[in-house]
Amino acid sequence: MVKIFSLLSIATAVSAVAAAGLDPAGQFKRLGACPTLGCVFPPDRSEFLAGAHFDVRVEVHAENDAKPNTEYSLTIEKIGNSKDNKHGNNGRAVDFSKWSRIKPDSPEAWDFIYNKDASAYWKTQDGDKNAATQVHVASTAWRRVQIREPGTYKVVLKYNNGKTTEAVWTVNPVQKRKAKNVILFIGDGMSTAMLTAARLISKPHISGKYQNRLHVDKFPFLGHVMTHSLDSLITDSANSASAYNTGHKSSAGALGVYPDSSPSPFDDPKQELLAELMRRRSKKNGGPGGVGIVTTAEVQDATPAAVFSHTRNRDEKATIVDQMIHGRNPVVADVILGGGGKYFHAKNGGKSLNGTDYYSVYAKEKGYKVVNDKDALLKYKGDDPLLGIFHSGNMDVWLDRHVYKANLKKQGTDPTGNGGSALNQPDLDEMVIKALEVLDKRHRKEGWFLMAEAASVDKMMHPLDYDRGLADVLELDNTVGKTKEWLKRHKLDKDTLILVTADHAHSFDVYGSVDTQYFNSFSKTEEDEKKNSIGTYENSGWPSYVDADGDGFPDNWEVRYTLAAGSAGFPTHREDFQVNVNGTRVPAVVRSSSHHHFSIYDANPEDSLNGIHKSGTLPANEAVGVHSLQDVPIFATGPGANLFSGVQDNTEIFHKIAHLLGLGEEN
Amino acid sequence: MVKIFSLLSIATAVSAVAAAGLDPAGQFKRLGACPTLGCVFPPDRSEFLAGAHFDVRVEVHAENDAKPNTEYSLTIEKIGNSKDNKHGNNGRAVDFSKWSRIKPDSPEAWDFIYNKDASAYWKTQDGDKNAATQVHVASTAWRRVQIREPGTYKVVLKYNNGKTTEAVWTVNPVQKRKAKNVILFIGDGMSTAMLTAARLISKPHISGKYQNRLHVDKFPFLGHVMTHSLDSLITDSANSASAYNTGHKSSAGALGVYPDSSPSPFDDPKQELLAELMRRRSKKNGGPGGVGIVTTAEVQDATPAAVFSHTRNRDEKATIVDQMIHGRNPVVADVILGGGGKYFHAKNGGKSLNGTDYYSVYAKEKGYKVVNDKDALLKYKGDDPLLGIFHSGNMDVWLDRHVYKANLKKQGTDPTGNGGSALNQPDLDEMVIKALEVLDKRHRKEGWFLMAEAASVDKMMHPLDYDRGLADVLELDNTVGKTKEWLKRHKLDKDTLILVTADHAHSFDVYGSVDTQYFNSFSKTEEDEKKNSIGTYENSGWPSYVDADGDGFPDNWEVRYTLAAGSAGFPTHREDFQVNVNGTRVPAVVRSSSHHHFSIYDANPEDSLNGIHKSGTLPANEAVGVHSLQDVPIFATGPGANLFSGVQDNTEIFHKIAHLLGLGEEN
Repeated sequence: MVKIFSLLSIATAVSAVAAAGLDPAGQFKRLGACPTLGCVFPPDRSEFLAGAHFDVRVEVHAENDAKPNTEYSLTIEKIGNSKDNKHGNNGRAVDFSKWSRIKPDSPEAWDFIYNKDASAYWKTQDGDKNAATQVHVASTAWRRVQIREPGTYKVVLKYNNGKTTEAVWTVNPVQKRKAKNVILFIGDGMSTAMLTAARLISKPHISGKYQNRLHVDKFPFLGHVMTHSLDSLITDSANSASAYNTGHKSSAGALGVYPDSSPSPFDDPKQELLAELMRRRSKKNGGPGGVGIVTTAEVQDATPAAVFSHTRNRDEKATIVDQMIHGRNPVVADVILGGGGKYFHAKNGGKSLNGTDYYSVYAKEKGYKVVNDKDALLKYKGDDPLLGIFHSGNMDVWLDRHVYKANLKKQGTDPTGNGGSALNQPDLDEMVIKALEVLDKRHRKEGWFLMAEAASVDKMMHPLDYDRGLADVLELDNTVGKTKEWLKRHKLDKDTLILVTADHAHSFDVYGSVDTQYFNSFSKTEEDEKKNSIGTYENSGWPSYVDADGDGFPDNWEVRYTLAAGSAGFPTHREDFQVNVNGTRVPAVVRSSSHHHFSIYDANPEDSLNGIHKSGTLPANEAVGVHSLQDVPIFATGPGANLFSGVQDNTEIFHKIAHLLGLGEEN
Repeated sequence: MVKIFSLLSIATAVSAVAAAGLDPAGQFKRLGACPTLGCVFPPDRSEFLAGAHFDVRVEVHAENDAKPNTEYSLTIEKIGNSKDNKHGNNGRAVDFSKWSRIKPDSPEAWDFIYNKDASAYWKTQDGDKNAATQVHVASTAWRRVQIREPGTYKVVLKYNNGKTTEAVWTVNPVQKRKAKNVILFIGDGMSTAMLTAARLISKPHISGKYQNRLHVDKFPFLGHVMTHSLDSLITDSANSASAYNTGHKSSAGALGVYPDSSPSPFDDPKQELLAELMRRRSKKNGGPGGVGIVTTAEVQDATPAAVFSHTRNRDEKATIVDQMIHGRNPVVADVILGGGGKYFHAKNGGKSLNGTDYYSVYAKEKGYKVVNDKDALLKYKGDDPLLGIFHSGNMDVWLDRHVYKANLKKQGTDPTGNGGSALNQPDLDEMVIKALEVLDKRHRKEGWFLMAEAASVDKMMHPLDYDRGLADVLELDNTVGKTKEWLKRHKLDKDTLILVTADHAHSFDVYGSVDTQYFNSFSKTEEDEKKNSIGTYENSGWPSYVDADGDGFPDNWEVRYTLAAGSAGFPTHREDFQVNVNGTRVPAVVRSSSHHHFSIYDANPEDSLNGIHKSGTLPANEAVGVHSLQDVPIFATGPGANLFSGVQDNTEIFHKIAHLLGLGEEN
């Protein structure tokens, strides 16, 4: 359905790259997706949903003493075998402003610096002011461009007296709506290996065969998603979530925009979001639909923020709270549930925009019901939109909420800024079911889109806290099971597409088991002997986790036989293969002595005291593990689920969902 | 189609385990899949293709001074809602010999020892003769049992005056044949991350989007396969390949058998193989079909041997060569291509069974054409079965055959035992296409089954030689592409199911890029600085590999920007993130001083001289990286491909293939 490759043949594509002299190799870039001095955003090979809005920006760069030539022009031309379009420019390049009927912003100019390679970067990090390269920029932006005619377009920037940068854009044909509702579950950072490990510690097996499986294991369709950024092989959560919400790849830290080089984090060329399209939908194609956002992180965190905000910098969390209700086309979601209270108020260290009480603004301006604990959430049965914020920051994880509850008693985690602890947080399944109730009540007729994130899979995999990460994988899977039951009970299962995926992976895997009794019988210095407690192959046997009470989680996490788990990219740390009873792990801390101006991390002397030593495999200034390359799984069930079978780019997920929800509009 | 769960409910299954007092947790076992003193093979939860042959064995164990009670009995009873069967025993337990009409072997008795846990194991390894536990065994075996009536059976061993061991067996109903031919490609040890990395280094991308993809990326259906052993979370290649070839899980090292505790590696209870079923197929269901085996390993290695042999010990390579033509139901494959020459002859260190010249025996007894180099292979156009052996051991890998050819000049690699080097080895695609030609010529009418293995993905991932491993992943993928072309050209694409999968994973993943120029600019002692050459997230950028000549492989492997790759389970070693020009990597060697009786490995002082130090995460006696837990992908295209969508156990792969080929036979 959604085309995988653009109309140009592969050979043409490759030779175009060669012809333009583009070499994407290397770690550092002047500006992502712009290997030459002339930049076009959206860049080459962008794909568009017919009728979706987007901004266009061109930049002309000059390095060091050179000055950027301000005599540049942008043209567009429809190519390929399509019929003439309304602009009548088939086969003829037309001035972009004339063609789009959009007056560009006034020309702009600014400077920025970048590092050419690792050598320059680390010199800059170390305080050398001359290591970076100066860039001077001339730029023009067109806002809210829209292409309603499917086909392939060639956009050409002419600059510096004869240089050109070409971008081929493809506008996909509109498809008939097939799904009324879509639920996109994201296990942030959740890899296939984590699902395998989560299954292993929670499902009974006889003779090596599972007698029950994960809920996602029962989904009929499975795909893999390629997660690369626009400009790097490893993505972060912001730009990968943006790919799902916009159909455009972007760069680290970016939400709903292509990052330009300008100083402002808010003027970057925007891409229309799935949720914005749901809201803007015309009566003809079903009318505005519902939008729900659930996360165990701060609701301003990358993955939820990608549903409703536009900024080059995911750290602009206070503004992100404002964008939900005051943005260019504010999403004003029907339901928003998660953490992040401190960006809603200014009390006791609260960091809201301009000190505003956003709980009150959401309630008064947009009629939100605001709840701040689990009881209030579960009690709510009203018709109003619902804002539920249950923690000042990221919500606590399943293992602390349910097993090591003493860890919840931390000052200042209360979401309202009263200085107390958030002791009454809902579970992911409770938030998702409440979101379904609200969406069903408000948009049963028009349909809805719900994004629900198990955010702390990622947040626990970073500090190598595998037990906490796997528990949150299980919480997500159990939530998927309860969601399926709810949909069936409400006769919505035939109308609702469920997707369960991740935005990127971590390199976590399991390579055996550990006899912790044997491990702990040796002293810290007997590393060889300790390592002999690791069983591989036939000696890996089975771990001792049991779910006798049938709640989908192991009953006991402090067992004799644990998993020999690890990852490929990690800081220097110690490893004892045992659950961290006293809260999230901190594997590495800053080394006290260093002759550099940047921090260097070493094993935390208070973590895994009795563990084996692991010398790090990351830049010395990385405190925790990092994201990894591998494709992530996507599990699909419901109308259109078959489209997600096989291997696909992360941008294709947007196009498939948008088509299934009938969000495109042709002339 | 293939039932995932047996008729008993999950609750029953779990309580059955609890009732039997079975705790599968722990690393060491008296005997896999037999947690009590009474053992039944096939064990609880075994599934069978209707009509397939299998052996049955019961063992009664007694530890130390106890003696096994020889008064035991085995009964079988059909359970569930199925109609009476021909034996008329529905709802009534019947003596197994009477029911099966098979006279068991004479009762046997033997002793063996095992270690109860890691403490006992390492004491035994260290020379302590008293650490292990003695076991005395009484046993009976029934050979060539067959159940032709689908349904669920309860088998009960009564022993030790009232103790019982129950096994529930399920015989799946026969399905209509849907595929004429099946090709099972196995990338040994090939994980999803390896495919992602192989794509990254070989396919062009623009703005973060691939302009071409792997061949498997274009397959319409994708599934995940759970790889656990019968008795351990981590599998080896023998028992995982056996699951694909028999539908039964087994233990490390086992080929086509459930390992018993007896001293002989050849008397273990056998399971009928896919290839044996193809050969035994009746006229009624299409007549005997063709069998082909291609591997880049020794043809006696675990994965190819699993297609045609039965032994508890995969190291019995000389006997495996004999089993192909003299086994109980010898497969006598139509085509066998790969390495392993030294087990076919006795010259110059050749290790053939009883010093026999098996090249000559294969040719004279079974009419094989024997070829020993690429030219002879490509030239062969005959009708006879084909044996092609191109190396004394495992064939050399793609990177050495094509880029670092000097590494091929090793004495004694010639497959005929002439003492010279195997300089003229075919590529995997050449072997597969020749196998297709032979199978098509000999069995176009009846259909055929071809197993083709890229064996050295695993063999290179073990010593952390990622470049060699990824090149062999690419060789497999390119072979898949050429296979699809060949099938289309010969109008066999509609009749032929293609599966591409792995038998298990390694924990390999990529977490960034490395600027090797910057890395190499620092001395061995400047580890922190070296690590700063690793770029993560936005600084990961893109590696410098380019495939300009379009052969599907990078043109240059010694580039500036390489992959920051690693794994979770590895021996102590050094890592420089650069290709090993002088042949397969040897990351670790035995430490010269140790107070133990077992070897302890340390970083090889001659490997990655200038690399960073990585302290190992494995038992100290492991020299190389190990297999990992994560589910492996299976890509499917052709008739019945949709059955492989979603998550499945490795034993289900056998049942799906067997059903699609119509290999089952009911009454």
